[in-house]
Amino acid sequence: MSRFATSVANLRSSEIRDLMSLATAPDIISFAGGMPGNELFPLEIIDTIYQSLTEKEKQVAMQYGPTTGLPSLLESLSAYLEKKGLPAKSNRLIITTGALQAIHILAKAFIDPGDPILVETPSFIGALSAFRAYDANLITVPLKEDGMDIGQLKKRLDSTLPTPKFLYYTPNFHNPAGIIYSRKIKEQIIDLLKDRDIPIIEDDVYSDLYFYEEDLPEMQLIKAMDPEGIDVCYTGSFSKILGPGLRLGWMLVPEEIYRKCELIKQSIDACSPSISQVIADKFIRRGDVYNYTASVRLEYKKRGLAMIEALEASLPSYVTFEKPRGGFYTWLRLPEGTDATAILRKSIEKGVVFVSGKTFDPDAIQNNYMRVSFCNTDVETIRQGVPLIAEAIKEIYG
Amino acid sequence: MSRFATSVANLRSSEIRDLMSLATAPDIISFAGGMPGNELFPLEIIDTIYQSLTEKEKQVAMQYGPTTGLPSLLESLSAYLEKKGLPAKSNRLIITTGALQAIHILAKAFIDPGDPILVETPSFIGALSAFRAYDANLITVPLKEDGMDIGQLKKRLDSTLPTPKFLYYTPNFHNPAGIIYSRKIKEQIIDLLKDRDIPIIEDDVYSDLYFYEEDLPEMQLIKAMDPEGIDVCYTGSFSKILGPGLRLGWMLVPEEIYRKCELIKQSIDACSPSISQVIADKFIRRGDVYNYTASVRLEYKKRGLAMIEALEASLPSYVTFEKPRGGFYTWLRLPEGTDATAILRKSIEKGVVFVSGKTFDPDAIQNNYMRVSFCNTDVETIRQGVPLIAEAIKEIYG
Repeated sequence: MSRFATSVANLRSSEIRDLMSLATAPDIISFAGGMPGNELFPLEIIDTIYQSLTEKEKQVAMQYGPTTGLPSLLESLSAYLEKKGLPAKSNRLIITTGALQAIHILAKAFIDPGDPILVETPSFIGALSAFRAYDANLITVPLKEDGMDIGQLKKRLDSTLPTPKFLYYTPNFHNPAGIIYSRKIKEQIIDLLKDRDIPIIEDDVYSDLYFYEEDLPEMQLIKAMDPEGIDVCYTGSFSKILGPGLRLGWMLVPEEIYRKCELIKQSIDACSPSISQVIADKFIRRGDVYNYTASVRLEYKKRGLAMIEALEASLPSYVTFEKPRGGFYTWLRLPEGTDATAILRKSIEKGVVFVSGKTFDPDAIQNNYMRVSFCNTDVETIRQGVPLIAEAIKEIYG
Repeated sequence: MSRFATSVANLRSSEIRDLMSLATAPDIISFAGGMPGNELFPLEIIDTIYQSLTEKEKQVAMQYGPTTGLPSLLESLSAYLEKKGLPAKSNRLIITTGALQAIHILAKAFIDPGDPILVETPSFIGALSAFRAYDANLITVPLKEDGMDIGQLKKRLDSTLPTPKFLYYTPNFHNPAGIIYSRKIKEQIIDLLKDRDIPIIEDDVYSDLYFYEEDLPEMQLIKAMDPEGIDVCYTGSFSKILGPGLRLGWMLVPEEIYRKCELIKQSIDACSPSISQVIADKFIRRGDVYNYTASVRLEYKKRGLAMIEALEASLPSYVTFEKPRGGFYTWLRLPEGTDATAILRKSIEKGVVFVSGKTFDPDAIQNNYMRVSFCNTDVETIRQGVPLIAEAIKEIYG
């Protein structure tokens, strides 16, 4: 018998760690990372914010804060979320140590070992690792180009016992699939869940990074629709609109869930870093968040369009993809049975890296997909690297 | 049936949150907090460090880092721990989001619901909340003036089935009891545990804050003794030697435990704040940690001695305490049956606050103790506030 808890037996080392070290190796072109480019961080704004801090604010930055967040940041973030149409006033906000911690806390709040939960396939691996850490039974629903396959969702709901503890989904610029959920799919999800009393975790870390303003109506969040009869746990992050190194995210949740999550957060790290909270608060209050987001949005759009162009110019016709309309990722679909890991190995020989599909499959099987990110490589590098990936594919599959 | 996980049913709202807001109210003298005084933070050093950062270092501060910590900090912290006599080279280091997260991760790694673990009574409430979050069966061992009651520990070991998953203890300047473990007690603990294969979590966040250098030999850590046949999980923190707002701690553990804890950490918050890690790394490398710790050590000693003097001058004879020789706390012992909460209420009327004993009792019963901290009040305020507490005691108990 292992000396360790049975609930963590399912945790496994993902390829991600090795990939990340590969992704940051100096002489390789990396389309593997899910992080902003280093050169895009608003360092001058951070400098200005740091210089503007009073002695008292610096003391706050160095001191413990309340478990749910510094009052000033809760206020400014609440106003920021209200502006996005989110019901911040009728819900409660908890500042977390990254959005992943918000998801982890929710996983801990709801999951007993073996409990079924509904997840997309493919899905965000960080969330999967949090769910595995509580020994959840992952019930997968395939993703189509406009969101979850609703027929499959209905089937799972009708056949899964006990009732799933929650549904976890990523509405906008999905990681890894890159897609936007259509309004219609979201309405169908609401219809299916509301009579079953299944909460939704809506993980929304990319929605500020849209390329086309015209998509905004379609992108409306379920949390913003505020559907009656469903508890929606909305999670978000400063990682993509300021910097992941601050480790700051949040959850916006109904009162009852808030109370449970506050206690869990208290037992995990007492409070999130005050130094990060002080900076993020100023970043919102000074209006920097709007200007900065507008500027990175443009840059990611340039990169995304360059990625589309390079892929279209070099990929063999049996590789298809949805054109990204925001976010960080393109998701290449290869014929059933293709082994993306073999392509990855060949690509590494050529000096370029991406993430193979099965990493994002909750069952760790389906491998005829490739996640190729455009977030932390510039346009020139995208134009150099993509043809190398196309070569690798053609060398193996013709 | 609750919709929430059964494993978190035991989490309860502690008095601590209310106390903390009381503790920071402007017109009350607070002996309640367990945080450094705001005026003691090394703000000028932090300014200097921030000014010295290169653009590249600032980028690192804003970016994700490896789950176990930034390589540069792992290196500098490792050297720092080696200097303290800890076996950093033969163990593995993980940077955590505060020492509490290190304890939480270890709790998650070892505890299945109902598993017995050994804890001191009284004990650090943050650790208790982490253990409760995994539904541990807390087996309590009373504390004496030189550490755990070894007779009681032996009794618990002989009578507890299954074998406890670990023993959690605080070697130096115990929170709340203020005591130092004697070398003899530590050796007896080692003797009792080594044949039973029970790991030790050694929670050591105060040991740099000693008043008397002559105590150092007695304060030697079990981790530094490196006893054969026992896995010692050593946890520490930058909270008391730099600032809790950075949320930075660590665990130094054997390889097998490291591998499990790395996966758990990955699922909790991916990595600890890079911005804090960059600052802490410079703080060590520049040697600031040594100078700063030396200076706060002197200040806490002044406060501790003022506290002893004020208590001796004003307390009735039926209240006794061990004179603190470091750390943050004095722990007043009242006659069996005394209600420290009644004294607390009376004290609040007089404008002074502390924490009543049962907060630190794993069974939340024994209340004839009071934790009176001297860490975040200056000498003058200590002299003003302590007599008010003594008055409150005398008004109720004569």
